[in-house]
Amino acid sequence: MLGAIEAGGTKFVCAVSDEDLNIIERVSFPTTTPEETLEKVFHFFDTYEDLKAIGIGSFGPIDINKHSKKYGYVTSTPKLAWKNFDFLGEMKKHYPLPMGWTTDVNAACLGEYEVGSAANNDSCIYLTVGTGIGGGAIMNGRFVEGFGHPEMGHILVKPHQKDDFEGWCPYHRNCLEGLAAGPSVEKRYGIKAQEIDADHEIWQILAYYLAQALVDYTLILRPEKIILGGGVMSQIQMLDLVKKEFTTLLANYVEIPDIHSYIVRPSLGNNAGIMGGLLLARKSL
Amino acid sequence: MLGAIEAGGTKFVCAVSDEDLNIIERVSFPTTTPEETLEKVFHFFDTYEDLKAIGIGSFGPIDINKHSKKYGYVTSTPKLAWKNFDFLGEMKKHYPLPMGWTTDVNAACLGEYEVGSAANNDSCIYLTVGTGIGGGAIMNGRFVEGFGHPEMGHILVKPHQKDDFEGWCPYHRNCLEGLAAGPSVEKRYGIKAQEIDADHEIWQILAYYLAQALVDYTLILRPEKIILGGGVMSQIQMLDLVKKEFTTLLANYVEIPDIHSYIVRPSLGNNAGIMGGLLLARKSL
Repeated sequence: MLGAIEAGGTKFVCAVSDEDLNIIERVSFPTTTPEETLEKVFHFFDTYEDLKAIGIGSFGPIDINKHSKKYGYVTSTPKLAWKNFDFLGEMKKHYPLPMGWTTDVNAACLGEYEVGSAANNDSCIYLTVGTGIGGGAIMNGRFVEGFGHPEMGHILVKPHQKDDFEGWCPYHRNCLEGLAAGPSVEKRYGIKAQEIDADHEIWQILAYYLAQALVDYTLILRPEKIILGGGVMSQIQMLDLVKKEFTTLLANYVEIPDIHSYIVRPSLGNNAGIMGGLLLARKSL
Repeated sequence: MLGAIEAGGTKFVCAVSDEDLNIIERVSFPTTTPEETLEKVFHFFDTYEDLKAIGIGSFGPIDINKHSKKYGYVTSTPKLAWKNFDFLGEMKKHYPLPMGWTTDVNAACLGEYEVGSAANNDSCIYLTVGTGIGGGAIMNGRFVEGFGHPEMGHILVKPHQKDDFEGWCPYHRNCLEGLAAGPSVEKRYGIKAQEIDADHEIWQILAYYLAQALVDYTLILRPEKIILGGGVMSQIQMLDLVKKEFTTLLANYVEIPDIHSYIVRPSLGNNAGIMGGLLLARKSL
């Protein structure tokens, strides 16, 4: 039996599955303090005595460097109660089991890579565009990571000529996340993104920023597939707008797979993260 | 005995070494037509009967996909005589030996990774900034590549507020290469880059563009080291300007190694590419 935690900044999902990844039970609860939240995690997993391993995909930034003293910690998150919290360490104190540990977006990327949209590919990127923008990448079966894990939502983009919004990222102001994550829409217009018409020019503007990022990811990593999830991308018009802007900006400079099989939605939907967690658990055995 | 070719767009370098990579002989000649150029390549290597393998780092774009019918070809290069030329195939016709095949910048990256500036690291990026801008990356001992090889010199950057140059990249106009490669300086001012004072604001402007790219590479790949070579970077003032702009733009968002060990010059200098070729040859055995 395998366990998984999809530890998001606003909610936690926990699940257990059999060794073929058939989910037996899953629960979900809001992310509050580490103590309160982990109590619920323990409460859930304690009922499964034959758990063999647990995979954790966590919001970040987190420390994934095995040589680091803070390996397994949530590090410089703006969620202050979690800052420098030894998440993996606390889990290991409770369960003396093999554990997988990576970011929430890497876990979702792994889910899609193994059993989702990229199941037939050797490489892919998973990008979520919601209240923040985060991405993970796998090349030849391994996460792309070095000194730390990617933070590809914060790359720099050039302004759209019709957009005078200055951006809201507290670190970079007008990086990709500062200009194109969901909250940027409300900060521009004072109304929630969901309440804005599908033909409003804001969607064109967001698509322009996201397409720039996809061009940069394409030229740097040359993945076989890019998977776009998250609340902003669930706006039905967005995928086509992003593909169109991407095609214009790339200008046929490098060969890519057919655009409709290159830029796609997650086939696991909201299950990508938890499936990735289970796969991480299985890999840790 | 190992052989290597550093096949640049303007000149070819060929070398042979012993198995410990001590160079025995090297020659260099201008890149003309494929027939004429390869005749000189054959003339050089034909004299070494106990050659065991050859490593080739070629200007591109090239096809590096082993499943492709055009694996080993130079593909969509603006050098028309080389377009769709089966470089590796011609080499193999002449020498029935194991051969390594990658881009010129990947080869230089490999040289620096194995025996140069990044010899103690698990990951690095090599970027050359000269008449064009090209980059290669290695993570955990493998080249970063998927559907094709990176073309990281063409990522998109935002304009410097004092720069009204519209860029000269024939594909993207104002991508990184279009705004920051050597020829952009001459196109802006009508005089060659080498003739412009070190305290001219153009260096600040180029450093701003290059630093943006380095921020994006950092956030997407999280390498342990970034190595900057090429003619523009050999301007003595450039390295410090790039580091300064990079520090400002990254805004401490992610942890990096000490800046002076993170952004560095190639310790192999102009030998990075040919050393990488020899290493490729040895790996192919």
